[in-house]
Amino acid sequence: MNFSHSGKEVTGGICAAKGYVANAVSAGIKDPQNLRLDLGLVFSEHPTTSAGVFTTNEIKAAPVKVSQAHLAETEQRAFVVNSGNANVCTGEEGIVHARDTAQQIGKHLGINAKEVGVCSTGVIGLPLPYLRMSEQFGALTASLSGEKGDLFRDSILTSDTRAKEIALELEIDGQKVRIGGCAKGAGMICPRMATMLCFITTDAALPKSLLQQLLSGANEQTFNKISVDGDMSTNDTILVMANGASGVTLSETHSKIEEFKDAFRYVLDHLARAIVLDGEKVTKFVTLVVKGARTEEEAHKVALAVGNSALVKSSWNGDDPNWGRVIHAVGYAGVSLQEEKVSLYWDGLAACENGKLGPAGINELRDVASKAAFTLTIDLGLGQASSYLYTSDLSPEYVDYNRSEYAYWNSFAKSTEVG
Amino acid sequence: MNFSHSGKEVTGGICAAKGYVANAVSAGIKDPQNLRLDLGLVFSEHPTTSAGVFTTNEIKAAPVKVSQAHLAETEQRAFVVNSGNANVCTGEEGIVHARDTAQQIGKHLGINAKEVGVCSTGVIGLPLPYLRMSEQFGALTASLSGEKGDLFRDSILTSDTRAKEIALELEIDGQKVRIGGCAKGAGMICPRMATMLCFITTDAALPKSLLQQLLSGANEQTFNKISVDGDMSTNDTILVMANGASGVTLSETHSKIEEFKDAFRYVLDHLARAIVLDGEKVTKFVTLVVKGARTEEEAHKVALAVGNSALVKSSWNGDDPNWGRVIHAVGYAGVSLQEEKVSLYWDGLAACENGKLGPAGINELRDVASKAAFTLTIDLGLGQASSYLYTSDLSPEYVDYNRSEYAYWNSFAKSTEVG
Repeated sequence: MNFSHSGKEVTGGICAAKGYVANAVSAGIKDPQNLRLDLGLVFSEHPTTSAGVFTTNEIKAAPVKVSQAHLAETEQRAFVVNSGNANVCTGEEGIVHARDTAQQIGKHLGINAKEVGVCSTGVIGLPLPYLRMSEQFGALTASLSGEKGDLFRDSILTSDTRAKEIALELEIDGQKVRIGGCAKGAGMICPRMATMLCFITTDAALPKSLLQQLLSGANEQTFNKISVDGDMSTNDTILVMANGASGVTLSETHSKIEEFKDAFRYVLDHLARAIVLDGEKVTKFVTLVVKGARTEEEAHKVALAVGNSALVKSSWNGDDPNWGRVIHAVGYAGVSLQEEKVSLYWDGLAACENGKLGPAGINELRDVASKAAFTLTIDLGLGQASSYLYTSDLSPEYVDYNRSEYAYWNSFAKSTEVG
Repeated sequence: MNFSHSGKEVTGGICAAKGYVANAVSAGIKDPQNLRLDLGLVFSEHPTTSAGVFTTNEIKAAPVKVSQAHLAETEQRAFVVNSGNANVCTGEEGIVHARDTAQQIGKHLGINAKEVGVCSTGVIGLPLPYLRMSEQFGALTASLSGEKGDLFRDSILTSDTRAKEIALELEIDGQKVRIGGCAKGAGMICPRMATMLCFITTDAALPKSLLQQLLSGANEQTFNKISVDGDMSTNDTILVMANGASGVTLSETHSKIEEFKDAFRYVLDHLARAIVLDGEKVTKFVTLVVKGARTEEEAHKVALAVGNSALVKSSWNGDDPNWGRVIHAVGYAGVSLQEEKVSLYWDGLAACENGKLGPAGINELRDVASKAAFTLTIDLGLGQASSYLYTSDLSPEYVDYNRSEYAYWNSFAKSTEVG
């Protein structure tokens, strides 16, 4: 929702915090004939604590499995990411490639393979062009710099049209502490997961358990509250490193821990919203608020049913305050309701009150529905619990894009023409 | 699936069976300035047994509530249907209008109000223009005829582009027995319900409990296995009448009961398929078969996740055998899986085998994906249970149509300009 923080925004993204360096190169994964940045690395020059959240999809990418195992075993010092190929459904070979990536990158950086988190994003089901990719590991690790956060940020993008990064600075114990991050998203975006890919760094020091708790909690309120198309990815991952380079050590009892938590959540919230705003061919950002529910879980079920309804999302695309479609989706959310208690508001205007046509004028409702961003509030009138979802419209252009732009046979051809 | 029957197809639709008459008129509900058929009636000249299935949406149309109550109390002799306004979220007034419709139609027909089933379909949330509608009850009931099944069939349509009807004739006990029906659909079509609207008549006599059992069973295998857009309507209803006018009485022990059941199921299957084939701006009919599941319920969960995925449906629209998108949706269906056991087949061609790229050639796969109808088989490799779903692609035109064609403010204007 409207999370606040007491810090100030600074530039630098993933390298805004002290002691982090990054780089990105072109390995011809996205397209061997038309090179674009598609292999990125961020590295902490100091030891860290680290945390992660991963997709709950039953089909998990090979790098997700490998990164989960690495994180469970030890702290992470580096994240290596390729875009253009998701390394999913690639069998034992996919696992070998992900492990070997960590091994080779670790060797170049002088750290253990298990200190390297590996992520992939892109087309599902085609073998990773590992030969092309691994040939670039030397160049990738040779010229790391604190000035190259933007290269890393850009290298992780796929169908995104905009880069997504943010960094905040706080004053704690007389020191400057920074939290920075970047993300990629755009399609296959739905809650019950982390996001597509998101990387966060901070130069505060935190105990691992606190860092994980912070991440899990903030993730629940941010990335788990977004949906572009209702499609949960196989690769969703958020990885965080905290290296203590600021000289500030935080604990659960530190007087500034709440300020840090707020700033940390704000960073995640900013990146989660940025993913919805840059959703594939999206024209509207809709904040769905469901209140008056018996439980938060029921409230969220209703939010998901409405936010993922093709008919509702199409009406939003048409600037149409079509509350009948909204209430029909409310009705199939799997939550027991009383029709005569349900009210629906567009930026506070009652389109439907107590299950019937409300007093809001049609022209006023159209004005709200025509805005690039509005809040649709669903009051179930049953209790005190609530939830929310950041979501978007569905456009003809989304379908057109996804019917053609990333056609499987194009990827197939590119993947198989070169080794 | 491929249900068979031993009868022959005959014309006449809802009036093909003996003893049924129908009519339809224009009541200016769809558009008071541009009159189209929007008020229909089918009537059994003889006493009946009757059965019904209704939407499980928590938000139910007023006529659904009234028809459920009527059917629970007594047998139905007539079905009266308006299109253009769904009479949903219209409060107590909506209930009064639905009850009064049954009352007035019953009076004209000389039967009890509770022998009249009432259905509505169209825009949600606007008051039924009941004055305009009730003024036509006299004309509607005055010229009922066994030749007007086509008028009734056409009057129930909304965004449908084609009429949907079928009738079968069987020989039982030396008599001709017929089952006929019609349906409307097109948008807001998803299982866990009946369909939009479907009406069935037969001139066999059956005990009420057997008729309901037949309907519920066949519905489970037909209408509950379709999805166009994943949106379950507030008005979904199937109503059936059996009037015995053929002279044939059936029971659970009758030697021909299985033949009748098969024909009855075939009629429902035909109409359910017709709804998918005429789904809003649909270009493909996809039969999803999920096998190798632990339970039928798990198989169906997987079918629904795949069949309602915006990304999967967009790829179908683009003739794209994009199996990565299919397996990603399989993965978030909420069913525990083993990736290395999942295989995916387009008309039998293995695009994915045991969780990895299968042997099928990309050109052969494209040929299948380019067909107007194909079967996509998902083998989970876990057990013996299976399910299926008739579904469709998602086109840019669907979104465009639903962002504009039925804009709420147009309906609002039409509904409020005349009393």
